[in-house]
Amino acid sequence: MDEMKLPTRAENYNEWYNQLVLRAELADYAPVRGCMVVRPYGWAIWENIQKALDARFKATGHVNAAFPLLIPQSFMTKEKEHVEGFAPELAVVTHGGGVELEEPLVVRPTSETVIGTMYAKWIQSYRDLPVLINQWANVVRWEMRTKLFLRTLEFYWQEGHTAHATQAEAVEETERMLNVYADFAKNEAAVPVLPGQKSETEKFAGAVSTYSIEAMMGDTKALQAGTSHFLGQNFAKAFDIKFLDENNTLQHCWTTSWGLSTRFIGAMIMTHGDDQGLILPPNLAPYQVVLVPIYRKDTEKGPVMETITRLQAGLEALQIRTKLDDREEVTPGFKFNDWEMRGVPLRLEIGPKDVEKGSIALARRDIPGRDGKQFLPAAGYEQAIPELLSEIQAALLGKATQFRDDHIFEVDNYADFKDVVENKGWVKAWWHDDRQNEAKIKEDTRATLRNYVPNVEGEGVCFLTGKKTNKIAYFAKGY
Amino acid sequence: MDEMKLPTRAENYNEWYNQLVLRAELADYAPVRGCMVVRPYGWAIWENIQKALDARFKATGHVNAAFPLLIPQSFMTKEKEHVEGFAPELAVVTHGGGVELEEPLVVRPTSETVIGTMYAKWIQSYRDLPVLINQWANVVRWEMRTKLFLRTLEFYWQEGHTAHATQAEAVEETERMLNVYADFAKNEAAVPVLPGQKSETEKFAGAVSTYSIEAMMGDTKALQAGTSHFLGQNFAKAFDIKFLDENNTLQHCWTTSWGLSTRFIGAMIMTHGDDQGLILPPNLAPYQVVLVPIYRKDTEKGPVMETITRLQAGLEALQIRTKLDDREEVTPGFKFNDWEMRGVPLRLEIGPKDVEKGSIALARRDIPGRDGKQFLPAAGYEQAIPELLSEIQAALLGKATQFRDDHIFEVDNYADFKDVVENKGWVKAWWHDDRQNEAKIKEDTRATLRNYVPNVEGEGVCFLTGKKTNKIAYFAKGY
Repeated sequence: MDEMKLPTRAENYNEWYNQLVLRAELADYAPVRGCMVVRPYGWAIWENIQKALDARFKATGHVNAAFPLLIPQSFMTKEKEHVEGFAPELAVVTHGGGVELEEPLVVRPTSETVIGTMYAKWIQSYRDLPVLINQWANVVRWEMRTKLFLRTLEFYWQEGHTAHATQAEAVEETERMLNVYADFAKNEAAVPVLPGQKSETEKFAGAVSTYSIEAMMGDTKALQAGTSHFLGQNFAKAFDIKFLDENNTLQHCWTTSWGLSTRFIGAMIMTHGDDQGLILPPNLAPYQVVLVPIYRKDTEKGPVMETITRLQAGLEALQIRTKLDDREEVTPGFKFNDWEMRGVPLRLEIGPKDVEKGSIALARRDIPGRDGKQFLPAAGYEQAIPELLSEIQAALLGKATQFRDDHIFEVDNYADFKDVVENKGWVKAWWHDDRQNEAKIKEDTRATLRNYVPNVEGEGVCFLTGKKTNKIAYFAKGY
Repeated sequence: MDEMKLPTRAENYNEWYNQLVLRAELADYAPVRGCMVVRPYGWAIWENIQKALDARFKATGHVNAAFPLLIPQSFMTKEKEHVEGFAPELAVVTHGGGVELEEPLVVRPTSETVIGTMYAKWIQSYRDLPVLINQWANVVRWEMRTKLFLRTLEFYWQEGHTAHATQAEAVEETERMLNVYADFAKNEAAVPVLPGQKSETEKFAGAVSTYSIEAMMGDTKALQAGTSHFLGQNFAKAFDIKFLDENNTLQHCWTTSWGLSTRFIGAMIMTHGDDQGLILPPNLAPYQVVLVPIYRKDTEKGPVMETITRLQAGLEALQIRTKLDDREEVTPGFKFNDWEMRGVPLRLEIGPKDVEKGSIALARRDIPGRDGKQFLPAAGYEQAIPELLSEIQAALLGKATQFRDDHIFEVDNYADFKDVVENKGWVKAWWHDDRQNEAKIKEDTRATLRNYVPNVEGEGVCFLTGKKTNKIAYFAKGY
């Protein structure tokens, strides 16, 4: 363990992030360039994300399955836009069992093609629809510039793939899952995302339309934290997914896909973290409460450890996730810094005086120093601690929402636009869709259209072209 | 859906298995030869296996993480026996992002090499030990003869990898996890496995010793259903996993690895299945109770559906996993056959008479026909159904144990040995270890040494060589 301080976010946001990920033992660099090892503390966050999402998927009628990692290379070329999007990013298996393969196989970058092939086999009748399947899987995309959690060659995600009898049902599903993501982000991760449709330029390769949830990071850059795609009949036609409808007419299905990945852990780090390190929302934290015993003499140790162990058992019985830090080779002060850096929402301290007085000391991770510290009678902990965890969860969401809202600016001209995306945060502005202008903005400023504000009423004037439009878009530099 | 009967096990065990896996919609063939799609019903079994095992891993102090899929080819060659074992089975990525790689990457067939590399980086001091990490992952082995669940190019498993300060601790861990597997198999899957050590010939490539749990299938063949390896310092030396001990001396760690895969689903199918199809143990069945409404007229439908829906809600509230089969396009008889084939432990029927009388009809999957059917007052279902599920769980274990014990034969000469492994089941016999004789037996009979009986007392005479020995071994043809 290394007691050196992290760089502050103001000094170097990028280095703050990289060092935090390593030192909080969330992830590490694998031997292969751009690949990641997710360490136990990071994986425990992902397991909590999985539980929270999987419950929502099952509540909306989905089931899980597992489709293969290896896909014949020719499959990737069947949907024209899909292959253009993914061909540059493929990892290719050319040899198996010591011999060169007749047809190379790609390691899945996403599974529309192979799942489409299976759906074509499984679906015959309208009675087989809808098919609502999700898988938790690893995928590989050959990225050049990588960053732990945010962009790695291999990453972990879930990908939902659904097939429907009608366009309306498929669109409804696309929107339903977008809302599931937004609800999860807000209520579990305390990440106040903005859901909306992507532009034509930014949509998924092969989709009719793509929706995303966009999150604002602590440096005000945007991060796409989950996507939901309406695929129309594009993949159904490319992979021959057909069904006999109630009138015995053969029709192509309408399909969707939607995914959220380990990238979301990066979003959590950069939404909540401060200069001391990580701040984890209680709902997803591997440990919600860390217990630190404080004693100097051996005669103090016994009563302190007895009290703190009993408290831990009591908290675990309440389904609260705890960690008792009973290391003897480091000081309590070291432990405080260590668990602050690792973002545990609440710290509980017990010293000899607390044992005598029947009190506990609690320190909130989200409120540094004295203001976040309180002393309570130990007797009431079963009520006080769950309440405090709820308060912290709500406070994190409140703070992140405030930060986001403070850094979104409406503009009506390109000079202001440039000033905002360069120095202040996100732009929210009337926008007349135009691929070329969108490309020009990206070239000029590196800002991209994040997504459109949903359900806009009325009309306005495009900040760039002065044309009338009914669309409002968010623009920002992104990860 | 297809109403054709399965082949009986006596007619063609192999075809019975293959068709059952497909028709129960457990798995399907993927486009790439030898790869598998695990369909939702099969994956739900795997999820239940995961839950049962993961709880046991965590209770024994393990945590989960995720290590990368892609491993530099050179890593595989660092442990001499390991590379000899796995080189013929590797899938190799030679191209990434459109260019040929400087060093080819292998798709992990198992992760000792890459995990060893990370442990070498993470472990410095005795205070860092033990490291007790598991991962749930997919692996790829280029198999020539494949069979759904039992042997596929890609499969799903967990692999635990631990590092310890002493040999004794590592051996203890190896045995602990073997016992975890045996306990899981017996008490969750009702598969009465025999745990024990493998022979030198059959051990894992790179291990000092390998332990396995061996299960007897319905055709009396053996199936290795999980393995636990004591790796000594072999991988620690190959990958430089060292620590400073309490005396400040640099030492190599002692490591273990242990795994159980989707192959176990095959073991469950072939332990319990009958000519009507699958029989799933209640503890791991995706649906423990299927509810079938029975009515002819529209006037009957309302009250029947109301009663059965209320019953379903009541069962779900008891944490019982249920499926209400409300399909209208098929008959109740079709549903009975369908769910029998899919192995649901208990069927609950409700007809208009049951609504009137306040009764329910229950049919046990493990006892076909009238003997397995009973009529109960609906009022007592909260107690009766959980009890019945426990009874079924115990009955399956009892039946499988009886079948196993009835098909293990002690022999004292090679003629009897051949007769047993060819026609009757497993041999249990005194065995004087000898690699060449073991190879000869395999060549003569295709039977292999499955594992040794643990804790044998006394001595006996080897059935083949007549030499004195203190070992007793199981031999059988295996999957």
